[in-house]
Amino acid sequence: MDQKNTPDRSINPNLNKLQRKVHFDIDSLWAGIQKGDVVQLSKAITLIESTHAKHQELSRQLLERCMPLTGNSIRIGITGTPGVGKSTFIEAYGSQLIEAGEKIAVLTIDPSSQISKGSILGDKTRMEKLAGHPMAFIRPSPAGDSLGGVARKTRETIMLCEAAGYSRILIETVGVGQSEIAVHSMVDVFCLLLLPGGGDELQGIKRGIMEMADIVLVNKADEDRIKMAQATKRDYANALHLLPPKSNGWTVQVMTVSGLQGIGIQAFESQIQAYIEQVKGNDSFHKKRAEQASYWLEESLQQQVLNTFLEHPEVASLYPKLKEQVVRNQISPFTASDELIQRFKKK
Amino acid sequence: MDQKNTPDRSINPNLNKLQRKVHFDIDSLWAGIQKGDVVQLSKAITLIESTHAKHQELSRQLLERCMPLTGNSIRIGITGTPGVGKSTFIEAYGSQLIEAGEKIAVLTIDPSSQISKGSILGDKTRMEKLAGHPMAFIRPSPAGDSLGGVARKTRETIMLCEAAGYSRILIETVGVGQSEIAVHSMVDVFCLLLLPGGGDELQGIKRGIMEMADIVLVNKADEDRIKMAQATKRDYANALHLLPPKSNGWTVQVMTVSGLQGIGIQAFESQIQAYIEQVKGNDSFHKKRAEQASYWLEESLQQQVLNTFLEHPEVASLYPKLKEQVVRNQISPFTASDELIQRFKKK
Repeated sequence: MDQKNTPDRSINPNLNKLQRKVHFDIDSLWAGIQKGDVVQLSKAITLIESTHAKHQELSRQLLERCMPLTGNSIRIGITGTPGVGKSTFIEAYGSQLIEAGEKIAVLTIDPSSQISKGSILGDKTRMEKLAGHPMAFIRPSPAGDSLGGVARKTRETIMLCEAAGYSRILIETVGVGQSEIAVHSMVDVFCLLLLPGGGDELQGIKRGIMEMADIVLVNKADEDRIKMAQATKRDYANALHLLPPKSNGWTVQVMTVSGLQGIGIQAFESQIQAYIEQVKGNDSFHKKRAEQASYWLEESLQQQVLNTFLEHPEVASLYPKLKEQVVRNQISPFTASDELIQRFKKK
Repeated sequence: MDQKNTPDRSINPNLNKLQRKVHFDIDSLWAGIQKGDVVQLSKAITLIESTHAKHQELSRQLLERCMPLTGNSIRIGITGTPGVGKSTFIEAYGSQLIEAGEKIAVLTIDPSSQISKGSILGDKTRMEKLAGHPMAFIRPSPAGDSLGGVARKTRETIMLCEAAGYSRILIETVGVGQSEIAVHSMVDVFCLLLLPGGGDELQGIKRGIMEMADIVLVNKADEDRIKMAQATKRDYANALHLLPPKSNGWTVQVMTVSGLQGIGIQAFESQIQAYIEQVKGNDSFHKKRAEQASYWLEESLQQQVLNTFLEHPEVASLYPKLKEQVVRNQISPFTASDELIQRFKKK
């Protein structure tokens, strides 16, 4: 259904090899980004996506230059299972934003897309109107073999896009995995798309995602599905009412929309603005951003410290054996952990 | 309202000093545990709670001896905000289990109780019937300055209790913090107690806890609250129906009970048994336990590796400064993380 889920590996089978051959000039990239030059922005994103050590150092330098220009966009997360109509909705919403004078970037997080980056063609085809528009920038999920890596690259891409003057960043995710937590931790407002009627389609949504949503959209509320969509909206509004309130004081909104027919898109934007106004008014907007920055520092540290640990020769040989014993209830997880830590500290 | 929340610091102000003076004989403890001797079991728990290095080594030895005798209980988590009636419910349920021939241990996780362990008196007073019964063992939350430490000690206490022949372990938590995630990761079935009517009382429940529950109990369904409790039950049953299904195939049950009047306690036990039968039938019971063991290994490793990292002199002096810059959006969280990791690796 989603072309994104069937990446065409013929497009770019040797991304890293290609990246290494590209010459990156930091000054040109930086000059281009400041001017909002899409070619230089794309090249800069390719640089930060590179796993080459020399490129990583250049990325750091570029990102540090960009820092003062970041933080001025509204970052919107959009999730929902394949088939719920995310791309059509984003195309309708994005087009409306552009008409209202916004410059929009659409990013995707989909760790399953892996190294092929095959989704370039898929995404661009699915968002024809936006793909051709000078005020829109569409970039598919970065390559990466771990969610942590993909998330980092996406968060850095947000920074580059903000430095290049994009005022709205839409981050799309597929709604079936851990990637929602990553997206939720990098956006200001998190939106969940549902289908009218619920039922089987819902089963693709991971537990816990419902509670992350700030705005719930029942999509495809058009033609003969309007009544069903309204009933679904009522059910979710009742259910969400029973959940504990958000600490920022926002009451989760449930709305019906149709991405295909452009119904409810303006009302959605009004809710986004109402949300931003409220969270900026009680300062939870900046508090959340500061918390998110701390979160990514800690996440990144934990991951890297753990990698350092797992690369330790003694740990690397002992860990799988001990883990097996732990899973079989032969030794306590804490004893195994203490044992491994002692080896690590002795190095 | 809850005596547990106002620890009486006069009871045991110098726990660690006391622990150091106690002489622990592993052979006596092990012999006592095998016989189900409550005095030796209590002493063994005091040993594992000690932060003294020598005691920690003895704890490891004792726990390894216990390992083959662990895993045979049913572990039940019970959460809910203060005032919902957890202790009264546990007293009613525990008494019924004892009549049915079970041997029960009641443990508490409450990281806020800290070092005073002042809750001993509070808990025992609140559960008069159980406290005096030879088939019941009540132990308050272990002392500890971090949730990780408290959780580890509680999980090790479960192992000691199982080795001592307790067939049901009830783990109570206060429903207002991160401790639910810890409890959820050490029990077979997780139960949430609510008050009739919801409203303000609900606001103490952290977001995300609802989705962890396997059984939701509307407590205090007695006298003039019966109708309101039944309405609350219906509302939650409808709301939970909209959440994605659990991977173990279990449909979350919502029931009305009265701990005070002993209403619905037998029906609750029937649901516990139905749950255990289902998850043992489709093997998700053992799969979950294996996952939990892995989870604790990884949690414990992450925590200990991170501590090793934070104790590194250069990291210790640089980390607070970089974190401050990250929160102020002056440097990227990833740049800060890379910088810290480079220092750490150089040692």
